[in-house]
Amino acid sequence: MSIATYPIQRVPHHDVVGALERGCQEHGLDPLAGKLAELRLFLAHDLDEVDRAIAAVGLGAETPAQASARHLLSQDGKRLRPIVVALAAHVGKGFNDAARAYAVAVELVHNATLLHDDVVDVGARRRGADAARVIYGNAASIFGGDWLLVEALCRIQRAGSAEVLARMLDVIKEMVIAESMQLARRGKLDTSVSDYFHIVDGKTASLFRWAMFAGGRAGGVSDEGCEALVDYGKKLGVAFQLVDDVLDVAGDPEATGKTLLADLGEGKMTYPLLCALERCPELVPLLEAVCAGEEVGPEVGGRVASQLRSSGVVDECLALARKLCEEAIAGLSSIPDGVAKSALVTVARATPERRR
Amino acid sequence: MSIATYPIQRVPHHDVVGALERGCQEHGLDPLAGKLAELRLFLAHDLDEVDRAIAAVGLGAETPAQASARHLLSQDGKRLRPIVVALAAHVGKGFNDAARAYAVAVELVHNATLLHDDVVDVGARRRGADAARVIYGNAASIFGGDWLLVEALCRIQRAGSAEVLARMLDVIKEMVIAESMQLARRGKLDTSVSDYFHIVDGKTASLFRWAMFAGGRAGGVSDEGCEALVDYGKKLGVAFQLVDDVLDVAGDPEATGKTLLADLGEGKMTYPLLCALERCPELVPLLEAVCAGEEVGPEVGGRVASQLRSSGVVDECLALARKLCEEAIAGLSSIPDGVAKSALVTVARATPERRR
Repeated sequence: MSIATYPIQRVPHHDVVGALERGCQEHGLDPLAGKLAELRLFLAHDLDEVDRAIAAVGLGAETPAQASARHLLSQDGKRLRPIVVALAAHVGKGFNDAARAYAVAVELVHNATLLHDDVVDVGARRRGADAARVIYGNAASIFGGDWLLVEALCRIQRAGSAEVLARMLDVIKEMVIAESMQLARRGKLDTSVSDYFHIVDGKTASLFRWAMFAGGRAGGVSDEGCEALVDYGKKLGVAFQLVDDVLDVAGDPEATGKTLLADLGEGKMTYPLLCALERCPELVPLLEAVCAGEEVGPEVGGRVASQLRSSGVVDECLALARKLCEEAIAGLSSIPDGVAKSALVTVARATPERRR
Repeated sequence: MSIATYPIQRVPHHDVVGALERGCQEHGLDPLAGKLAELRLFLAHDLDEVDRAIAAVGLGAETPAQASARHLLSQDGKRLRPIVVALAAHVGKGFNDAARAYAVAVELVHNATLLHDDVVDVGARRRGADAARVIYGNAASIFGGDWLLVEALCRIQRAGSAEVLARMLDVIKEMVIAESMQLARRGKLDTSVSDYFHIVDGKTASLFRWAMFAGGRAGGVSDEGCEALVDYGKKLGVAFQLVDDVLDVAGDPEATGKTLLADLGEGKMTYPLLCALERCPELVPLLEAVCAGEEVGPEVGGRVASQLRSSGVVDECLALARKLCEEAIAGLSSIPDGVAKSALVTVARATPERRR
């Protein structure tokens, strides 16, 4: 199916693709930016449907839990997980009712974890706005997360595949256990690289794996094809988290909407910081202070960022993200060529370039 | 099947039946106490299996979330919800693998809600011990609740009935929304009686309804029979909550393990207090102060309790609980006579007599 057969739709409000595109343009990657523009048109209709369905979740509901959840859902999220569901479905027969249900569900589960994480991390801001817990309170965000989780599971069950539901239940367990492992290590700099990747696989990659599997199943992709999609999801998810971690230590706070070293300030070790402990021993006392939650002054983030850039840590992390994305692409060899596969390649190529 | 055919087993550690029995003895209800002794033997084997399965949940797991959940599960819970699953199953073919899975799951869901509720209510004690959040922190209890919820759903899904799973998802939504409605009314005395019963149906009766349905389905009970069991569960659940509410305002703190007026101190209106607002206007300023979270001194609970007793409020609430239980029993008319039905009658008769 050619891109040209897709009518031009309004650009979705939640525009991760546009953000990726601008990232590529800024980096002089014009061919990639062009491909992202095509991808945006390719998915416009599907994502519009997903956005409409998400906007209707809990519409008219009045409890603080639901208000809290709707507040978060209405913010400008990246919608990357629904995008990968849609692309996986297009590898098969396309974006049907089941794929739409899964695309909505994956976003709801993601938002449920954000509501709970913000309570756990005492987070004040999210997606450039006040966190739901700041407006509606911690209790509302706890119940709001519970509610979104179950709303998601209802949608998955109604779509009819017991296997897709069972995998989601396993994924939620993985996510919760990984978050809890991260919690147990809070405030400690001595996380090992293997623990870091174990946590990232559980807390981030697991949901990308599921998104690819669910989309593939909805599209009627073969078992072998689905496993290839899952492997892509796993690698894309880890790369996505690596870039998140880089943006936390060396991003542009204007673009990300987060202050530098926010993760470390919550006591969370990230991969760039693990690298920094080896490469920049002079930073260790400062990183320990931030990790222990000490007030270190607003200029520290910028100083750490420039040192991580000059020492090559930032480049090393992005190189690893790019390597994972290339492996993700290589793993798609069994998937037939076509618009969907090209789009998956584009997403993987663009992921390390994103700036928000 | 006669009670006499069941070998004598060890008394289950989690002994709601024993507690009911002692309650009946204290109230001079010896025939009922004798029936509860029979019920205890009838279910000893099933509940032993449930206890063993619950003790194995997350065994060897190490994260704070799982430690938090295991701490709560290891406390001396009433296990009333697994009991009603077992009895509903015995209305049919008996306590099989599916019934056991549902009995374990209903207890896990109940405990998941307790973990989250204790964070929301900043509860310090639970089941006569430190609340999990006091030992492991709020974050561990939030993730611990999430984890138990999903553990429960996995067990229900594996048992194989999509309908039983769909009903549980709906019930969890009802519970969360009811808890959130209660939250929205926190600190306000002007809850209406109809709002109170709406909240109780959602936060308490819904899980009893599910327990009866799931047990009935596992036992192969007919659709009509299951609906009768659900109706029993709904009425028993409301009566159970009414008794809980009475114990909160006029129970023996030694027996309940909770201080008097704990619910009101968390800003929650209960049925006895709704009655008190009408019958004992002189108590209103005091109740408002407790509801607003003001420190009122330890003697206030006892004073309110004796006034609610002398004004007839306590008797009125227990009379309503007894009426609901008699209605629950009357609704079992289509269920064939037998040990299981007798046991359901006994549980309903004993519920208003419990003292913990």
